Order: sequence, then structure tokens, then C-alpha cells
Amino acid sequence: MASSDAAIGHGGEFPLIEALFHRSRGRPVEVHLGIGDDAALLAAGGDDDWVAAVDTLVEGVHALPGSDAAAFGWKAVAVNVSDLAAMGAAPKHALLAASLPRALPRQRAEALADGLHAALAEWGITLVGGDTVATPGPLTLSLTLLGRIDPNQALRRDGARPGDTVYVTGTLGDAAAGLELLRAPPAEPFPNQDRLIERHLRPRPPLAYGRGLAGAASAAIDVSDGLVADLGHIASASGVGIELDAERLPLSAPLGEWAWATGRDPLPLALSGGEDFELVFTAGAEAFEAMHRAKYQTDTRFTPIGRVVAERPGEVFGAGVPDGGGYDHFPTEGAG
Amino acid sequence: MASSDAAIGHGGEFPLIEALFHRSRGRPVEVHLGIGDDAALLAAGGDDDWVAAVDTLVEGVHALPGSDAAAFGWKAVAVNVSDLAAMGAAPKHALLAASLPRALPRQRAEALADGLHAALAEWGITLVGGDTVATPGPLTLSLTLLGRIDPNQALRRDGARPGDTVYVTGTLGDAAAGLELLRAPPAEPFPNQDRLIERHLRPRPPLAYGRGLAGAASAAIDVSDGLVADLGHIASASGVGIELDAERLPLSAPLGEWAWATGRDPLPLALSGGEDFELVFTAGAEAFEAMHRAKYQTDTRFTPIGRVVAERPGEVFGAGVPDGGGYDHFPTEGAG
Repeated sequence: MASSDAAIGHGGEFPLIEALFHRSRGRPVEVHLGIGDDAALLAAGGDDDWVAAVDTLVEGVHALPGSDAAAFGWKAVAVNVSDLAAMGAAPKHALLAASLPRALPRQRAEALADGLHAALAEWGITLVGGDTVATPGPLTLSLTLLGRIDPNQALRRDGARPGDTVYVTGTLGDAAAGLELLRAPPAEPFPNQDRLIERHLRPRPPLAYGRGLAGAASAAIDVSDGLVADLGHIASASGVGIELDAERLPLSAPLGEWAWATGRDPLPLALSGGEDFELVFTAGAEAFEAMHRAKYQTDTRFTPIGRVVAERPGEVFGAGVPDGGGYDHFPTEGAG
Repeated sequence: MASSDAAIGHGGEFPLIEALFHRSRGRPVEVHLGIGDDAALLAAGGDDDWVAAVDTLVEGVHALPGSDAAAFGWKAVAVNVSDLAAMGAAPKHALLAASLPRALPRQRAEALADGLHAALAEWGITLVGGDTVATPGPLTLSLTLLGRIDPNQALRRDGARPGDTVYVTGTLGDAAAGLELLRAPPAEPFPNQDRLIERHLRPRPPLAYGRGLAGAASAAIDVSDGLVADLGHIASASGVGIELDAERLPLSAPLGEWAWATGRDPLPLALSGGEDFELVFTAGAEAFEAMHRAKYQTDTRFTPIGRVVAERPGEVFGAGVPDGGGYDHFPTEGAG
């Protein structure tokens, strides 16, 4: 997901991680980047730096109760892969903390393991540790993902410069439409609605593309809370304004079908729907070669959607864009 | 705690981590030691190896409901420190996944943060990442702890050799007695009962002593499930038998008071009580210098309690010792 701090405030009433961070007296030199970016960046003392990210999924909060257990397992991996993609890092090792309800049916547990395994295999990640406990609460998975990156190549949030262009990979709003379809299936199904549902259930972060951007893009973040909210993190961290061209946001054909079938405007979903797990990044002309090489190597589409400006630092704005920082984004499944 | 696999079977009905491990096709060469030891051992490509461990604590399962929140936070760190102590590693970085009930009172949340911070500070650990989510279930903390160790110095479970002596640090059974005291406070409190309760609430793994053993002891594990159960892991992994002298187990004076006050035998608690978070290790004569140097440097007591033999591989036995592997250990708080 976007980050630890993106999760803060959506989570419990109490910003625990932030409170802990404020209690600490700074970080040792070997931690290049701690809480506040997509993942922590740690000097390993070798040729590579290590990155580390953790995300928790709670059934009934981050997925509909009784939902597809294989998809739940997949997503527990994917949201962390998205964090590493946004750093330009390569995932290597995972540690899984699983809290399983005692009444979890064997079939669902097997499906959960299948989904976790499929995602770990998809991205070449080795599970190196874990802890399984019984809980009287809901199914909860916390995955810690460790990865590697060349020193000084990590994509951060604080490097956007006025004059840079803003790009996003793939298409936006599909996952949010998929969630709406699961919550309220339409009386008349439309042809490609399953593709939207799949975007919600089994996100596929553009990991290889993110690695191609490492050392080239000036800033990056993954779209988890929603485009405007996540770009707001770049704007704040970089001390710049971001002017969006809302009419340029890449929308998929299935989302067009959804809009037609439901009579709804897809733009709010694209701006604020969240959980797209695409990459939004800023780059200057010097990054073009890397961007295009990665595009062809990884078959990943990207679209320019705005520009970085010196004005209105910390804000995301533009015609059709809801008020920048304070926008109350599309309410996704519960909190978190 | 002892390990991921120690948790398997105590947790949900389904051994999720084990199932995932069996689905995978082996581990890449850079993972020296994966699931099955106290922590994973990862080659970092530099001068040090990295170790990683994860443990989950669920309120109502691993701690009494409504218990001391500061102690709960402390313990979430301590159980992971214990895993690293058993590897001889130095903890460095932590990532925290916190699932907070929406109704968690502010005061308890602050106490939780206090306890987490106190333990992180105690062992010089930097919190580098985290994720806070809301849960309809109980308070749940999963901490991932990353640490470092010199290559080829890690204490493992599979190195015990016939002829080695078995040692344990500190005293055994105190934490289990403390838990019993919390569950059923005696009508007449005895003088030092708070010291037993404190052993349950705020374990202090002998981290510095474990680091002193690195490269010297032949095998080590932390006492989390109970002495006999945890020594059983060494016996199995090393393919040796372990003969215990039950009468030599180190018991504390407060545990003696508990036995006197309750009329109970303390030996079952020392053998199988669990959650002592002491180190039990095997070593030959060549380790004496390191063992004693670490003892004086860290003011940590250790006691010889048995010997490694070639007979009865995989078993822990001796007069007064319950049947080795299959012993159903003292039922601690729920499962986990």
C-alpha cells in the first residue's frame, strides 16, 4: 500500500506507528529512509541496499467478509509488492504473520495458502519465516516483504521538481468499480465486469516497470489510497504543487462499460477510488530513455497526467480535481 | 518465540506456514536457513548476514483480556528479541503491524505505545516501518525484527553433538507461575510474587549473552514453548538424544515461595511452563572461554542441566522428565 503513514489515521483511532516514531530520537545513519515512504530503505553493508515494507489485511475491513480466500492471500502479497514497486526495488524474502480464526474451514485455509503461494511464486519471493496464531477475531494477514535495490537508486517521494511531468501506469478506477460490483452486483451483468472485479481481487502491481524506473524517475508512489491522495504525499514530501489534467487520466474500456451500465461518472473513481496499485511517478526529460526502455521490456503502459509546479506546495489541483490535500477519498471497504 | 514451526499446530487448525513451505520448491542459495529455526538467516552480500523473525501476539490468546497494555507492547518486542538472542544475533530494525480495535481507549493505546517504545529503546531497535489497521477483532501485534550477525556465527538448532553439555540461562518456571498468579491471585499474597508476574508480563531475553555465544555454542533455542518441548526441537534437528537432569534445573527463590504458598510442585512449570524466554544451548569444552567471558560481561547466570547423547535421537528424557517429544506441555494462555 502507499505507506505506513498513509495507513495512519485510516486505521485505529490512535496513530500508533506515528506515536512510536515521535517517541524515538531519530534514526541511525544506516537507515536511509524510515517511516513515511513506501518502504524503509536500509543499508546492508554490501553492494545492495535492502528495503522492507509491511502491510496488514483484515477480512471484513480490507476484503468483504467471506470473500475469496485465494484472492485474500494473493492480495496480502500484492499490496507489499506494490510498496516495493514504488521504490524501484526487487522483492526477495517474506515473513508472514497469520491470525486464523479457529472456525476457519479447511477448504478456505487451503485456498488462502494457494493464493499466498501463487503470489509469492509470481514475484519470485521466498517465504523465510512466519508465525501462525489462533484468533477469536477475523482472518488477519500481516506480510513483511524484504527486497533489494542498488544504492542511491531507490525511488522516493521527496524528489519531484518543478518542470517534471507526472505519469501513471496502467488505468485508474478499475479496482474501485470492481469492489462496487461485488458489493452490489448489477441486475444486468455487462460483458467485461469480471475484469474490474479481478482488478479489485488480484491486483498486479507493475513491479518490473518500477524497477526500470529506479535511478531515473524523480519521485514515485503506488496508488493505494487514491490518485489525488497519493500524489498529495509526493507534493508534501517534495514541497511542490502538482497540477493534474483530469481529462487525461487513463480509463479502461471495462470501466467505460461500467459507467454506461450504471449511469455513473468514472472520474471520481479514477481520482480517488484507491487500490489501483498502479505507479504514479514524476520524471524529467532525462528519464525518457529509461521510461521507454522499461515500457517495452515490461509491456507496461504509462500516461502523462500532469506536471510538477513550484506553486501551491503540498497541493494537488486542476480542473475537475477535488480539493487537494483535504479531499475525503472514495470510501473503500471500511478503514485501513 | 521458539520458531515459526513451534507456533504451527498451536495456532489455527491449519498449519498455514508449513503448507506454504511445502508448496515452495526449496529456497535460493542466499537464504542460509529458512522456516524451522528461531529466525531466518539471510546473506546480505556484505560483511554481515541478516536475520529476520516475526511473532504475533493476540490479546485474549497470548495475554489475558484487558491486561496491562504497556506489558503487551513490551512483550511483542521481547518475544522477537528472544528469537534473535537464540541465533546469537543483534537486533537492528523492526516493522510493526498493529491491528487495533476501534473501541481501544486512548489511554490503553498510549500505554501500548509506551511499552513498545520502552522495549525498542531497551534493545536499541529502530522502528523503520509499520501499518496500523482497525479490526473488529482483538488487539493484535505482529512484529518483524531484523538483525545482523557475522557470517557463519549464527546459533542454529542442528549443531548439537554427542558429548556436548546442555545449559540454560537464568531460571525456569517463573513466567508460568506468574501467569497462574494473574489468573488466580492467592488469598494471601507472598512477598516476591510480583517478581514472578513481572517475568510473565515483561520478559527480558538474555540477548547480550546470546551474542556472546555466537560462534561458540553448538546449538541454541529460546525457551518459549517449555524446556522439554524446545529441547525437543534441538534433539530432532540435530539427530541426537538429550538427557536431562531434572533435579539440576535452576529455580528462583520467588518460585520456591510460590511452591510453598500454593503447595504445588514447581518442577512441571520449569520443565514445561513455557514463556521463560531464557536460552537453552549445547556446547563442548571449546566453548567454555566464550561462555564464561559472556557470563561476566553480561552478568548472566547459566546452569548445566544435561548432556547430548547419540542414543534415542529426537528425544528428551531423564528421571522426572515427562515423555520427550509427545509431552503435552503446560497449557498456557489459550493457543499460539
